[in-house]
Amino acid sequence: MSARFISLEGGEGAGKSTVLEQLREQLAAAGVDVLHTREPGGTAVGEAVRAILLDPAYRGLCAEAELLLMFAARAQHVREVIQPALAAGRWVLSDRYTDASYAYQGGGRGQPAERIAGLEGWATGGLRPDLTLLLDLPVAQGLARAAARGGAADRIEQEQAEFFERVRAAYRARAAAEPQRFRLIDASRPLPEVLVQVGAVLDEFLAAAGVRAP
Amino acid sequence: MSARFISLEGGEGAGKSTVLEQLREQLAAAGVDVLHTREPGGTAVGEAVRAILLDPAYRGLCAEAELLLMFAARAQHVREVIQPALAAGRWVLSDRYTDASYAYQGGGRGQPAERIAGLEGWATGGLRPDLTLLLDLPVAQGLARAAARGGAADRIEQEQAEFFERVRAAYRARAAAEPQRFRLIDASRPLPEVLVQVGAVLDEFLAAAGVRAP
Repeated sequence: MSARFISLEGGEGAGKSTVLEQLREQLAAAGVDVLHTREPGGTAVGEAVRAILLDPAYRGLCAEAELLLMFAARAQHVREVIQPALAAGRWVLSDRYTDASYAYQGGGRGQPAERIAGLEGWATGGLRPDLTLLLDLPVAQGLARAAARGGAADRIEQEQAEFFERVRAAYRARAAAEPQRFRLIDASRPLPEVLVQVGAVLDEFLAAAGVRAP
Repeated sequence: MSARFISLEGGEGAGKSTVLEQLREQLAAAGVDVLHTREPGGTAVGEAVRAILLDPAYRGLCAEAELLLMFAARAQHVREVIQPALAAGRWVLSDRYTDASYAYQGGGRGQPAERIAGLEGWATGGLRPDLTLLLDLPVAQGLARAAARGGAADRIEQEQAEFFERVRAAYRARAAAEPQRFRLIDASRPLPEVLVQVGAVLDEFLAAAGVRAP
């Protein structure tokens, strides 16, 4: 069985952390050696860039700089972490990846999709996940959940609802354009049901990858 | 008289700081309202990116990420500082600008010139200086001067002589390709002579811009 690259995508309040935890447990139970990572970040320099990207002090960060910083962190992430792990036969599970740039910097900030595709071509060498789970739910519901969770909002979380509507639309368009890679998860349902759906998607993917059920 | 954008470029030990000081004084004496800035940096977020770029701890930074970080800082620099100043009628004098990416990330790191030109097109909106002074000298001489100056070398200064040979060659190629914009300054000569040459270049530029001699 060859290594696989899985990404998890979703907006605010979609339940990404809980789903990640289940994916970890399910992969471990299946005996898969998996590297867990996240974007922006995943490397020392990527985490330094993440700190800039999320710091509310940089409210005036222009859309072009935001896009370039995201891809700077990603270029390092691919070369230092993701590619070496896959080459060594390890699976990789990333909390967000390039689809997030199409959603947030493209849909949210209005950066043209061709610009993002151009960066994707050389900054990541075109590396795409084998499976992408998209946790999708109405923006109002996600923001209400995020607000109930509390905590200080980072620079991007401080955006308005219209911004997140554009992010969601871009994510859904990505999923519709690549049905082979994407699995759309209805994250508006109660969490136990979401986890059941996620579990079924991963079971199917593991079976197709030749991993025996535990 | 409309605002002008001047950049100063040069490798290690070229005497950039001293030349900058003279340019400042000469512009002030001519009554020009000039904004002084630098790259990478020039903005709060740009200085944070600069700290990453120069930190020897990030020795493993890949060439793609370095290029993207440089342009992230530059995109913000153009929009937050350079364009507004020019629009307000102020001149801008920048210690390094886009030519440095063609030299260091292009020549030095081997990033393709078309890739850099693509970024230049949208990250800076194609904004180019009206005048670029290139301080040029043999690499060995520059490195000897930088060593004599002392101080800790940053991540890029720690590179080997061959790296700086490629940087110099790329800078010279840029100057040869755009003789209207570039003025090549022979920085191998004794500093007083260099300053005389710089002074003459700026005087000529001021006269052409319609600024009366003081």
